[in-house]
Amino acid sequence: MTLRELGEEKLLARIAVSGSKSRQVVGGVRDDCAVLKTAAKGWLLLKTDAVVEGVHFRASASAAGVGWKAMMRPLSDIAAMAGQPQFALITLALPGKTDVSWVTSLYRGLRRAAVRFGVEIVGGETTAIAGGRVISVSVAGRVDAGRCVFRSGGKVDDALFVTGRLGGSIAGRHLKFTPRIEEARWLAAHFDVHAMMDLSDGLAADLPRLARASGVGYSLQLARVPRSRGCTVEEALNDGEDYELLFALPSDEVARLEKAWPRKFPRLPLTRIGNLVRAGKNRSQTLRGGYDHFRQPE
Amino acid sequence: MTLRELGEEKLLARIAVSGSKSRQVVGGVRDDCAVLKTAAKGWLLLKTDAVVEGVHFRASASAAGVGWKAMMRPLSDIAAMAGQPQFALITLALPGKTDVSWVTSLYRGLRRAAVRFGVEIVGGETTAIAGGRVISVSVAGRVDAGRCVFRSGGKVDDALFVTGRLGGSIAGRHLKFTPRIEEARWLAAHFDVHAMMDLSDGLAADLPRLARASGVGYSLQLARVPRSRGCTVEEALNDGEDYELLFALPSDEVARLEKAWPRKFPRLPLTRIGNLVRAGKNRSQTLRGGYDHFRQPE
Repeated sequence: MTLRELGEEKLLARIAVSGSKSRQVVGGVRDDCAVLKTAAKGWLLLKTDAVVEGVHFRASASAAGVGWKAMMRPLSDIAAMAGQPQFALITLALPGKTDVSWVTSLYRGLRRAAVRFGVEIVGGETTAIAGGRVISVSVAGRVDAGRCVFRSGGKVDDALFVTGRLGGSIAGRHLKFTPRIEEARWLAAHFDVHAMMDLSDGLAADLPRLARASGVGYSLQLARVPRSRGCTVEEALNDGEDYELLFALPSDEVARLEKAWPRKFPRLPLTRIGNLVRAGKNRSQTLRGGYDHFRQPE
Repeated sequence: MTLRELGEEKLLARIAVSGSKSRQVVGGVRDDCAVLKTAAKGWLLLKTDAVVEGVHFRASASAAGVGWKAMMRPLSDIAAMAGQPQFALITLALPGKTDVSWVTSLYRGLRRAAVRFGVEIVGGETTAIAGGRVISVSVAGRVDAGRCVFRSGGKVDDALFVTGRLGGSIAGRHLKFTPRIEEARWLAAHFDVHAMMDLSDGLAADLPRLARASGVGYSLQLARVPRSRGCTVEEALNDGEDYELLFALPSDEVARLEKAWPRKFPRLPLTRIGNLVRAGKNRSQTLRGGYDHFRQPE
């Protein structure tokens, strides 16, 4: 059955959350807005992100995988601030010819991803669209004021680390990655992390952004960049969609981190890839590249 | 110049907010997330909504008008809870061939709408799309716990009111309407409003929703429904995109409201259109219709 046959009201009834378990949710899943009790302390984090058919997923991709990715992308940004995600809102723009089963599978992926990190889906909106499918997810979260890590706090001589391995995400990982929420919160709780971000457009685009935001340069040891199996350095730098953490740590904390990390996260590699240096003194070939949405071949 | 020629990074530099004036914004406009200090008291309101080319606006529509509408739609939902909008995030999905001037005009409309209601744009995201343009806006706001008005609080014998005039929005009003934020907050502050919502899909679709959420029926006096100039009753009921308030008030407050309203809002009509009645006792022809996104002609 297609969405056109089912109609919007009945679709919403099928995918709507049936009453909330959380005492934080005052109401609103079927109201005009979500209404939430939030902790008095800490800062509010807000992020919204969209996945688009033909850009972030192929038409043939598993609907549940698309749902997982759509939820995990903004969660990865919450992670990058060392935050805790709490609430999500879903906007779907879908052609009327979309099969209803595709949408229910999509929601299965969205829900599974939300449950994995204790996020509650508190609202949704659907609209028709003539072209490809668009799924936009907005997330609200919290972070303790003293624990929030910005991109802009990097200092000269900080050591640069990345989690995981980079490159080749398009082969499948981009539909099933895990945002580094737990890792980022642990880092911010135990170390003086100066700057952090998640890698979405590739290290070649994202490392210069972190350095620029911090008003410093960078020295990257290309040979140390951790690569996914079968990937070249170039692919590791430019493919994008890694959703790993890039962070800057004062050099006197490096030894302690390198000892503690493998005990805490034995299955996730952590690699020191370089240093922050004085602005204008980039000691590796200046990076160019990474993913630009508007500059892809037609 | 097109977005493809300009590239994503330079586009973001052009449209990004250049530093915030508000002390509530800790950071994040150019970071992974928006980071916000919020008032300890009150509830958090979250809403996200999208406008889609060919559905919510024609390709030829003024870009500034589209921006205005994209911002005002979620603000209208915040209004419907008697809330105060505070922060907005923008997601743009645009074809690479889009002219950069279209996007800067769109942002002019988004910003003008935000400024009008004291909303701060605290983040944005852009992505390419193959089909029509999509603009998704997420809004966070606050409401005092005792002032929040849900759809579900309507009671038998409550009087039903609507603000403004209904129907014919497509002729132009849908690109320049004003959400009833001030009116809703005034109502909630001075009257025991039992239930409220904003009219987005037309009274014929939305009144049954309010009644259903409240577990009651409705009696609508069709002849009293306030119509926009040149509109039939049917158009007033079904056109949608009115963005007016529909609310239910105990009958013993009607006289006081009808006296106070024209003094406070002399330019905005307020009309009593019927009553809530016991469930299953709808005393007007049961409404059918309103706008269904997935059931429009292809």
